[in-house]
Amino acid sequence: MLKLNKVSTGPGSGIHRKDAEKATEQYKEELFHLQNVLFAGQKYSLLIIMQGMDASGKDGTIRDVFTSMNPMGINIKSFKNPTQEERSHDFLWRVHPHAPAKGMISVFNRSHYEDILVPTVHRVLDKKVIDDRYEQINDFEQLLQGSNTIILKFFLHISPEEQQKRIKERLLIPHKKWKYDKSDSREAKFWTEYTKVYEQILKRCGTHLPWIVVPADSKWYRNYIIAKEVRDTLRALKMRYPSGNMSNEAV
Amino acid sequence: MLKLNKVSTGPGSGIHRKDAEKATEQYKEELFHLQNVLFAGQKYSLLIIMQGMDASGKDGTIRDVFTSMNPMGINIKSFKNPTQEERSHDFLWRVHPHAPAKGMISVFNRSHYEDILVPTVHRVLDKKVIDDRYEQINDFEQLLQGSNTIILKFFLHISPEEQQKRIKERLLIPHKKWKYDKSDSREAKFWTEYTKVYEQILKRCGTHLPWIVVPADSKWYRNYIIAKEVRDTLRALKMRYPSGNMSNEAV
Repeated sequence: MLKLNKVSTGPGSGIHRKDAEKATEQYKEELFHLQNVLFAGQKYSLLIIMQGMDASGKDGTIRDVFTSMNPMGINIKSFKNPTQEERSHDFLWRVHPHAPAKGMISVFNRSHYEDILVPTVHRVLDKKVIDDRYEQINDFEQLLQGSNTIILKFFLHISPEEQQKRIKERLLIPHKKWKYDKSDSREAKFWTEYTKVYEQILKRCGTHLPWIVVPADSKWYRNYIIAKEVRDTLRALKMRYPSGNMSNEAV
Repeated sequence: MLKLNKVSTGPGSGIHRKDAEKATEQYKEELFHLQNVLFAGQKYSLLIIMQGMDASGKDGTIRDVFTSMNPMGINIKSFKNPTQEERSHDFLWRVHPHAPAKGMISVFNRSHYEDILVPTVHRVLDKKVIDDRYEQINDFEQLLQGSNTIILKFFLHISPEEQQKRIKERLLIPHKKWKYDKSDSREAKFWTEYTKVYEQILKRCGTHLPWIVVPADSKWYRNYIIAKEVRDTLRALKMRYPSGNMSNEAV
């Protein structure tokens, strides 16, 4: 099994910062066009799942990588603590409505994986219930894939030192202060426990659909890897603008 | 009452194209920052309603003006023909869930005004039912305003000649062909009828919350006016980053 503390959180040696930043800008431009063909074609949809510890850069990635996209074709769904009504349903009930329609991109900022992470770390659910969730998630993701949804799962991998640094920044830098949440510091104490569960998730929900572990201590490298993966994935679909009148076709 | 055919659809004489394009880019940058304070503050929300004839540039405006925004803080909702389930509720039932939460921006690409426009032009509802809808919309918009939602209503004003030109382009230009829908040509025949209803809407749903009629034959001018209005509106709120920890405040 992959041990996360054996995986570097720093930038790879393969590319220099300036080159990576230049490439990222180019990928973002390509993404704007690829998104347009995706939308026109109405054949595929794209689901991007972003997971990572508190302060690992999920919000920042969305801002840095997806801001250049046409907001008409992309929906960001941030999953918070489930409400009372949401808790009174199965854990995928609140997730399913946000699966992307054909032609669309959805980004999950946190996701159904929180429903394994939090109850395992805080021991609020039976092991059996949690074990089932691994399988239920695999089934759910395969259901979406079966209807032409491409799924990309990113784990933003930071070091505990980087996390501490960022949480402190939120307290010190005026325009970041509003982001600070007491629960950040509280949850950070469970670093080891969260890491263990993530290793389980990467393994048990990574066979059919592997996770992309993104070294995320450096924002420029994180943005580069994610922009590249999304662009490569969309490009591999070899999409073209449909030639006919959509409303005459059986879509 | 405002007569739409007396209102120019061309660019105003006050600004040259190059200056307008430069200003638009600057407004878009400002919008990115204003959106961030809006999100941080969690006090106001912004609802942008876009109406206009077929091919008046609603999609294009969203792409041109709002692409620079952080997709995490903006939702675009395109209202299509109501489904059977939606028809079995009051006409605002499908609209209300898409009102923006505090800190968020929603753009309605078409809106509840379609539920006056289409039934009036095609005479499928009693006059009394339609008359009530004008009032119901006013009440609804005031309800949203009462909970700190700022509402901007744009009518994209094009000439019938420009509409014809754009519908033809959709048939001729390969990467635009997918946008062509037979109903565009069909509905274009009702130009006069739609114009009459729009004049009613501008009057009866414009007292409390006036419409902004945007001359939209030239895309650069349209983008300039809309970017400027949105930026001026957000700037007028004089928002600041909250100084404290949000989770300690009664938001």
